Amino acid sequence: MRVYLDHAATTPVLEPILKKMLPYFGERFGNASSLHFLGEEAKEALEDARKTIAKYINSEPDEIYFTSGGTESDNIAIIGSSKMSERRHIVTSKIEHEAVIETAKYMQEQNYRVDFISVEENGIINTKELEKKLNEDTLIVSVMLANNEIGTIQPLKEMTKIAKRYGAIVHTDAVQAVGKMKIDVKELGIDMLSASAHKFYGPKGIGFLYIKKSTPVTNIIFGGGHERGMRSGTENVSGAVGMAAAIEFCYEHFCELEEKYKRWRDMILNACNNIEGFKLNGDPDKRVVNTLSLSFSGVNGEALAELLSMNEIAVSTASACSSHSSEKIVSHVLRAINLPQEYAEGTIRVVTGADNTDEQIEYFIEHLKKAVAQLRKMGGTA
Amino acid sequence: MRVYLDHAATTPVLEPILKKMLPYFGERFGNASSLHFLGEEAKEALEDARKTIAKYINSEPDEIYFTSGGTESDNIAIIGSSKMSERRHIVTSKIEHEAVIETAKYMQEQNYRVDFISVEENGIINTKELEKKLNEDTLIVSVMLANNEIGTIQPLKEMTKIAKRYGAIVHTDAVQAVGKMKIDVKELGIDMLSASAHKFYGPKGIGFLYIKKSTPVTNIIFGGGHERGMRSGTENVSGAVGMAAAIEFCYEHFCELEEKYKRWRDMILNACNNIEGFKLNGDPDKRVVNTLSLSFSGVNGEALAELLSMNEIAVSTASACSSHSSEKIVSHVLRAINLPQEYAEGTIRVVTGADNTDEQIEYFIEHLKKAVAQLRKMGGTA
Repeated sequence: MRVYLDHAATTPVLEPILKKMLPYFGERFGNASSLHFLGEEAKEALEDARKTIAKYINSEPDEIYFTSGGTESDNIAIIGSSKMSERRHIVTSKIEHEAVIETAKYMQEQNYRVDFISVEENGIINTKELEKKLNEDTLIVSVMLANNEIGTIQPLKEMTKIAKRYGAIVHTDAVQAVGKMKIDVKELGIDMLSASAHKFYGPKGIGFLYIKKSTPVTNIIFGGGHERGMRSGTENVSGAVGMAAAIEFCYEHFCELEEKYKRWRDMILNACNNIEGFKLNGDPDKRVVNTLSLSFSGVNGEALAELLSMNEIAVSTASACSSHSSEKIVSHVLRAINLPQEYAEGTIRVVTGADNTDEQIEYFIEHLKKAVAQLRKMGGTA
Repeated sequence: MRVYLDHAATTPVLEPILKKMLPYFGERFGNASSLHFLGEEAKEALEDARKTIAKYINSEPDEIYFTSGGTESDNIAIIGSSKMSERRHIVTSKIEHEAVIETAKYMQEQNYRVDFISVEENGIINTKELEKKLNEDTLIVSVMLANNEIGTIQPLKEMTKIAKRYGAIVHTDAVQAVGKMKIDVKELGIDMLSASAHKFYGPKGIGFLYIKKSTPVTNIIFGGGHERGMRSGTENVSGAVGMAAAIEFCYEHFCELEEKYKRWRDMILNACNNIEGFKLNGDPDKRVVNTLSLSFSGVNGEALAELLSMNEIAVSTASACSSHSSEKIVSHVLRAINLPQEYAEGTIRVVTGADNTDEQIEYFIEHLKKAVAQLRKMGGTA
């Protein structure tokens, strides 16, 4: 039995979502910028997708800009707003995704001052520390809504209120939040929000950036002026249609999905709590329900993931996106929450999804218990 | 009968190509950066796609970088190489795609000197003029391989030889060339080449940038370090698989497609040559065989396209990408070839494709003749 428990890395495009995309590869393949009937059909599909997405985050349709994914959205938010302001200070957190951290580092090279604020041991930012860093030179505060490794949700509404007192733009990388928690951009008070379709059962290669009306931000790539100048390049119509169908799926089935995720979370945590030397990382309550970062002392996390993989269970040790850097032994997120080395080295990330079943979770639990015991017997590594 | 003759704007994803993509939405949906079995499957598919693409342009696989499309590829080539050099001069042409022209204008704002070299009346760059503009400060020469409006092919090999004498990088936007002419990057001697899958029967939202080994160019967006640092963001696996299948389709069926395109070109031109006040734009020989820019005096091109559209025939007046700018009356390409205003205003672009049939071309010709006559009778506009 194949058991995929890595839904924070990517998700399958679910059958009904793919079905809605298919016509836009074939019969309705037009370029949304063409003026003839095929172009009009494509344009209509694109604008319908925009409306659907706007509806589920409570924005206006023309505040949604299609991009190639979360990374590009994050880059536009930070680099694009820097081009429109004299301010030279950026605030972000120590547990951001690489798309924000690396962009912030690039801004440092461009002589911007960047503060990477720390988090408490529960993975939540201390808003008092945030306030201390802010000043009249702060261009943007970019803090993720839900963390990709430990799933913790930041107090974004409170942070936005503080940031607004200093006139800073507020951006959130919501790549791991969209589809897993209700999002209301007006309620949050934020200016920009990044999302990526393949994290919520849509296709890879498409994302969006919400930009609140009149936020000073500009494009970072240049061309035909698509997406009202914000993102040139022929519109990915099938991708946009798929992303809209995916966000609709997540929110129209929200209660039923949440119920499943909670059940599976409880099943997994109950089992883990019976294992000695176990720790759940991140705040136990302020988190997206499907994401669990599990640490076992005296076990090597990579060996554990590999043993599970041999039984066709897919989990990860950290985020897929950091797997390019071979130097990293312990993830920057686990370091930021001050997890003792012994636990940090024995960490796996388990993320359930809409396509999982109770049977699969039971299968996983059975193999997890076995694998931890086996590795401990062998001295931690296989 | 629907007749699509706008294959320079976009193409349908052909059934056998889509079929190859489908598993990568569903069962093989893994993140290519994940270390477990699903990640490995995705990674393998991605690398196979890279090998296939490399094969058809005669590069090494690790010289192919996946991007979100032609526009992004062009931006990386120009902006990304500017970051790695002290040189401050850019040479491009007056008939480039907006993705190059607008990027070059952005570089002007960054205090780069940019020369937009002109073309002869046949749409071909005068290599002597190119040489006059070059100097030891020239960072990059970016000239498209085949033009998107009139289809002319530039003498790239000759231009590269000249540019190399000044140590300039040579980039070509080959978005309209890939699949329609044989391409050998080694033979051309170029350093970078941009392509976009949806122009050759692949999906929208994916393209590639060929970068010759050791060409000094760097990334323009920041994140997880995908594509060996050149392009961060979760890899669009289904897109890459589709693009590879598409390039394979074009080159494995090259002779048979070329024969069809030539037949249709001759059918259309024979009919047009019987219409008074007709002009074929661009060099009659040095051109991709499927692209025709047709001008009729005393006719409004937009009215002509609209009349055809009412008969379910899709053609365009200029490129789809320029349709965003409402000010443009005559395209920059037609201005560059000094087409008399009377003809420029009466221009349509007709681009045949793999999915057309003889019957469709006959249907188009019949309606074209009628429409031109009708418009002339009405004084040019409907």
